[in-house]
Amino acid sequence: VKLLVINPNISDSVTSLIQAEAERSASAGTQLTMLTAPFGVAYIETRFEALIGAFAVAQLAAAHHVGHDAVIIAAFGDPGLGGLREALPVPVLGLTESALASACLLGHRFSIIAISQRIQAWYREVVEANGLIGRLASIRALDRPLASIGNVQDEHAQGLRTLCERAVAEDGAEVIILAGAPLAGLARSLRGQLPVPVVDGVSSAVKHAESLVALAPGKAMHGSFAPPPAKPNRGLPDAIARLLGGNRLKA
Amino acid sequence: VKLLVINPNISDSVTSLIQAEAERSASAGTQLTMLTAPFGVAYIETRFEALIGAFAVAQLAAAHHVGHDAVIIAAFGDPGLGGLREALPVPVLGLTESALASACLLGHRFSIIAISQRIQAWYREVVEANGLIGRLASIRALDRPLASIGNVQDEHAQGLRTLCERAVAEDGAEVIILAGAPLAGLARSLRGQLPVPVVDGVSSAVKHAESLVALAPGKAMHGSFAPPPAKPNRGLPDAIARLLGGNRLKA
Amino acid sequence: VKLLVINPNISDSVTSLIQAEAERSASAGTQLTMLTAPFGVAYIETRFEALIGAFAVAQLAAAHHVGHDAVIIAAFGDPGLGGLREALPVPVLGLTESALASACLLGHRFSIIAISQRIQAWYREVVEANGLIGRLASIRALDRPLASIGNVQDEHAQGLRTLCERAVAEDGAEVIILAGAPLAGLARSLRGQLPVPVVDGVSSAVKHAESLVALAPGKAMHGSFAPPPAKPNRGLPDAIARLLGGNRLKA
Amino acid sequence: VKLLVINPNISDSVTSLIQAEAERSASAGTQLTMLTAPFGVAYIETRFEALIGAFAVAQLAAAHHVGHDAVIIAAFGDPGLGGLREALPVPVLGLTESALASACLLGHRFSIIAISQRIQAWYREVVEANGLIGRLASIRALDRPLASIGNVQDEHAQGLRTLCERAVAEDGAEVIILAGAPLAGLARSLRGQLPVPVVDGVSSAVKHAESLVALAPGKAMHGSFAPPPAKPNRGLPDAIARLLGGNRLKA
Amino acid sequence: VKLLVINPNISDSVTSLIQAEAERSASAGTQLTMLTAPFGVAYIETRFEALIGAFAVAQLAAAHHVGHDAVIIAAFGDPGLGGLREALPVPVLGLTESALASACLLGHRFSIIAISQRIQAWYREVVEANGLIGRLASIRALDRPLASIGNVQDEHAQGLRTLCERAVAEDGAEVIILAGAPLAGLARSLRGQLPVPVVDGVSSAVKHAESLVALAPGKAMHGSFAPPPAKPNRGLPDAIARLLGGNRLKA
Amino acid sequence: VKLLVINPNISDSVTSLIQAEAERSASAGTQLTMLTAPFGVAYIETRFEALIGAFAVAQLAAAHHVGHDAVIIAAFGDPGLGGLREALPVPVLGLTESALASACLLGHRFSIIAISQRIQAWYREVVEANGLIGRLASIRALDRPLASIGNVQDEHAQGLRTLCERAVAEDGAEVIILAGAPLAGLARSLRGQLPVPVVDGVSSAVKHAESLVALAPGKAMHGSFAPPPAKPNRGLPDAIARLLGGNRLKA
Repeated sequence: VKLLVINPNISDSVTSLIQAEAERSASAGTQLTMLTAPFGVAYIETRFEALIGAFAVAQLAAAHHVGHDAVIIAAFGDPGLGGLREALPVPVLGLTESALASACLLGHRFSIIAISQRIQAWYREVVEANGLIGRLASIRALDRPLASIGNVQDEHAQGLRTLCERAVAEDGAEVIILAGAPLAGLARSLRGQLPVPVVDGVSSAVKHAESLVALAPGKAMHGSFAPPPAKPNRGLPDAIARLLGGNRLKA
Repeated sequence: VKLLVINPNISDSVTSLIQAEAERSASAGTQLTMLTAPFGVAYIETRFEALIGAFAVAQLAAAHHVGHDAVIIAAFGDPGLGGLREALPVPVLGLTESALASACLLGHRFSIIAISQRIQAWYREVVEANGLIGRLASIRALDRPLASIGNVQDEHAQGLRTLCERAVAEDGAEVIILAGAPLAGLARSLRGQLPVPVVDGVSSAVKHAESLVALAPGKAMHGSFAPPPAKPNRGLPDAIARLLGGNRLKA
Repeated sequence: VKLLVINPNISDSVTSLIQAEAERSASAGTQLTMLTAPFGVAYIETRFEALIGAFAVAQLAAAHHVGHDAVIIAAFGDPGLGGLREALPVPVLGLTESALASACLLGHRFSIIAISQRIQAWYREVVEANGLIGRLASIRALDRPLASIGNVQDEHAQGLRTLCERAVAEDGAEVIILAGAPLAGLARSLRGQLPVPVVDGVSSAVKHAESLVALAPGKAMHGSFAPPPAKPNRGLPDAIARLLGGNRLKA
Repeated sequence: VKLLVINPNISDSVTSLIQAEAERSASAGTQLTMLTAPFGVAYIETRFEALIGAFAVAQLAAAHHVGHDAVIIAAFGDPGLGGLREALPVPVLGLTESALASACLLGHRFSIIAISQRIQAWYREVVEANGLIGRLASIRALDRPLASIGNVQDEHAQGLRTLCERAVAEDGAEVIILAGAPLAGLARSLRGQLPVPVVDGVSSAVKHAESLVALAPGKAMHGSFAPPPAKPNRGLPDAIARLLGGNRLKA
Repeated sequence: VKLLVINPNISDSVTSLIQAEAERSASAGTQLTMLTAPFGVAYIETRFEALIGAFAVAQLAAAHHVGHDAVIIAAFGDPGLGGLREALPVPVLGLTESALASACLLGHRFSIIAISQRIQAWYREVVEANGLIGRLASIRALDRPLASIGNVQDEHAQGLRTLCERAVAEDGAEVIILAGAPLAGLARSLRGQLPVPVVDGVSSAVKHAESLVALAPGKAMHGSFAPPPAKPNRGLPDAIARLLGGNRLKA
Repeated sequence: VKLLVINPNISDSVTSLIQAEAERSASAGTQLTMLTAPFGVAYIETRFEALIGAFAVAQLAAAHHVGHDAVIIAAFGDPGLGGLREALPVPVLGLTESALASACLLGHRFSIIAISQRIQAWYREVVEANGLIGRLASIRALDRPLASIGNVQDEHAQGLRTLCERAVAEDGAEVIILAGAPLAGLARSLRGQLPVPVVDGVSSAVKHAESLVALAPGKAMHGSFAPPPAKPNRGLPDAIARLLGGNRLKA
């Protein structure tokens, strides 16, 4: 199984965290291709940044998906997920959706632990868009500045653990989701230290990607996840234009 | 009042339709700046195309919003709306959200009339994202190919009217929303010919934009619609980079 | 544009507040007719009082709507709104519905700030009836007695502002709705002092009424907002009986 | 147990239907007082008519509740129910709410059979207001004119039965609710002829009223169903003014 | 009216509490048959224990329902309710469902007071399964160990009352539901001491059972509450096998 | 990875279908232990039969889980799932929940194809209990008798395929779930023949079980999925009593 894993942020340090956890999670035969967004921001906390990340992911996925069995959008919030699910011939997974799938198999209500206050409302909307708001116990987030996005886990180890514990004790969380690529691997580190199951997006996405490849459920050729119909387009990056087909108009 | 109206599609013919209806709808003192996406597709029907349109809108809005009192994203589905609402200092409106606001003031349940079968699932998700799925009576759509996106209203006049009538008679629609910029102006043409109120996105957006400018409710400086926090970024179009602030890293 | 603005309460002091804010909000060509309920209570906090206010509004609207382009029911909670929307030939707007429409164009989740503890449950039900409970961040209310209903804004200035700030900081409000006719004008006073957009019902209703008149979406002649079917009636106030048509039976 | 049963419509023929079914349903020791609205319409199909009926019920209940153990608002749609539950010292029940309570004890999803097309949207909103829209399988209604409101059951016997059967076969109804006072007694007549349990509002309300009297759960003295706080009022019918207390201002 | 009341737990002391309250609640002509589960746990707090209790109830109900007019499953959480409603020819009621029906007739939002922290999540799921989560104000529970399940009311009298008061004051409860058979009778004891109506499951179930018997709505013979279709079975307790019919295979 | 797969029905032919598909789906190193319920019915279509199946599964799982890494309840509808998730020290998966998790990773709205009309309402409730009713496009089912439960796929091949196609064309299904153990393997057979992705429960459960074992998220030791607290019990099957711990009372 060959997985294309795309970090929609420009942070190589986060890509390294993602890669490390993806490698630990992957089955023996699974190969990973890692890509980092060539443009965008250091980490996505807002809808506007997600919009940019979605376009960066789309370009990378369009250019590099050939030869891979599935694509993982490696940012919580899943920028570009719905669109790429339409356009690519292989399964596409996001960190949020994957973590939610894991969580739903482990308990009824889950809490999401995030790295910034700002990011919470957007995460909530993503859970709503997944139709799972009724199972969201809470979102809790760090409330202090992040010195380095690649080092959040260490710098805020105690704070993150406290958030998890309060989600269980006060919010009724039956599962904890550690959200965001910068927390990749933390679920593994916390194993056995929390009173409820804990999952993260990267490991979940890798396992579910492998599963979808094995299940081979087929690509939608009808309905809203079929490839977009060919139509005139203009000025698009080459890879995207090739993916879309259709008549390329002069700029 | 100066409104910046951005067509996220590349179709000048649709921009003309939008402009014509916007001018008919605007109050005496309102001035319109019309922009058409320099890259993208002829018209957006899918999540993937919306992702592209969102980025095109973001670039245009970032580059041209100065001097305007509000920005209108002139495609149904509102590509880029949430993000731009964060990033711009002025109100930002989309056609869907605006038409929904009008419809909610006229009845309890509404139907959306669309120009293609494919577009329906995406529209449904947008209504869900607006939290209004409980008031959606139905979405009905043309099921025949469109010869010309700029001429849908004329070519399919009877079909569109039949869809409206069936939404009222069979689905319980108390208000009709004519969806999509290519239908701009049709609500006006159908005035008095349908058994329930009918609204469209362009005229609704123009009126609500004028209202928001008059109400002057203020820009969010806290919470999830505050401007994105400044942070390192790389490779962004100049206008977007300026809007975001933060440290521009070398590519 | 001629607007009929009806205060469903008997308080002339509140009618004055409504009028002042309505005049400040209205466009140049808009004329206002103000009416105060001839019977009822000083201000509506309960379902029972709303029932009375609805009947008072119905009588006034039936008697005075001719010659107006739209009718505004100027109490939060919108007593009588659904019924009058059926019965009158022109658009009818309520303060809650109008404020919700404004808020939905400014953010995803909103909080409502109210003047009494008692009123909160009823407001919540009105938001539910509008299908928007999923976007309600919270309702917060003053918890001290009101010395004078016409002077709440001044008397409780600091308390109201504190409620707004807590709704943003603790409840995730992205927009603030100042609820209740006694707070008419407060949104304008607080401009620039709150960290998120703030709207009120009176100014929203005036602007949306003007918009609906301009959009001219048409009156429902079919479905549940068509005029009630003519049928035998008895003992109704003359204006209501004329509006309903049908055979008037002897008392 | 003494029950005050108020028909919010002016139709004595419907009051007779209600009374007959209420007497058949009542336990041995239960006494009924029947009242018919002195003003209003022949039967309520719309929100506007419900607004009138609510005020009529309020007046009658205020004037006549003393000496009764519970009050039944004998129209489907429950006009005035929430308000009177606040204002009266005894339990108040409506036909819709009572039928829903019965239905929920008999199956998961129910259908409502109504006597006119027009009435359906309003009934749907009442089910929504009861928080039970997720259990509503369908609303089906007669689509032919009613020659006489007191004779609907006989005139449309076959049509009503067909609606019931289709609700079961096509909509998945596990319980049938026969809606509207004009159908009082029909559930009893259809006993054993339908493939699922069938309930109506009048018999349900009588039984549940007796139960609430026996359970004696107490009157709310706090929260939103406590009596409305005393405050200045003006121009109210004497009985309502007495019920509200507060200072009566001169007209 | 003959009611079969089954305690799904093995605690005779709780059966006595149930019986005492059921007798106090029953009408003059009502006869009660009390049964205690021959296997299971002392009291049900978890889904796993409910699964066991459901099977115990099924056996007892299958063996003993003949000659009764209705069956009451006398544990909050209603183990086995849906299944027995299909299989038995008479109405079947649970404590939760019955208390919810009572509460819905008394106010819009209710709180549930429970005897253990652990039990809360399960109760919440039962309210969700009843489709009433939108009306749940809160669940509050004792947080101290129970010395004796038959003596909770006395041992924790003050704690339970405090929970009720906080539910009203802090959560907006308009009705209180005292949950769990061990609290049977407490609602009666607290009469007049709480600021909102208070109901419990046992008394509610007895009254609603009497009502359903009187209403005689009929047994479902079609749809999902019809008796299970006869089919091969094996190894079932005799009473269950007889109830199911079908071909009994050799073990 | 060692998986314990339990068929809650007594049909060996269905166990064989489950086993065949489980073996085809399992990764190289995965070992399967297959068990068939020693008591119960031929196949579960109703809540009552599910109640029986849940108890049978509980006994088998209690007796045989030791030495396995995860347990699969191999009937759609997931009888006993919540309870066993509490009681067992390893992950427990059901077919419905697993198929839903797969479907949610492939599209937004899904349809369920079932083998009998009767089973639909129950499946709907299970989707509701999973909090995913908002994503359910439809449930469609065969409407003809099943000659042999082990041979449904062949006997009704064309009928099943037609149901799938109609779900896509008429209901907007973006993913198809083939429901019920008797359809195990059909998704594999239909690969490439349907216009949207298709999944089934058995293969999904096997893959997700392997994933959960790999992710090792930990067992809940707090909250509602912790093991049930030890308490007095009586008359339980030995394996269940051992699992529960607590004081065993004499029968």
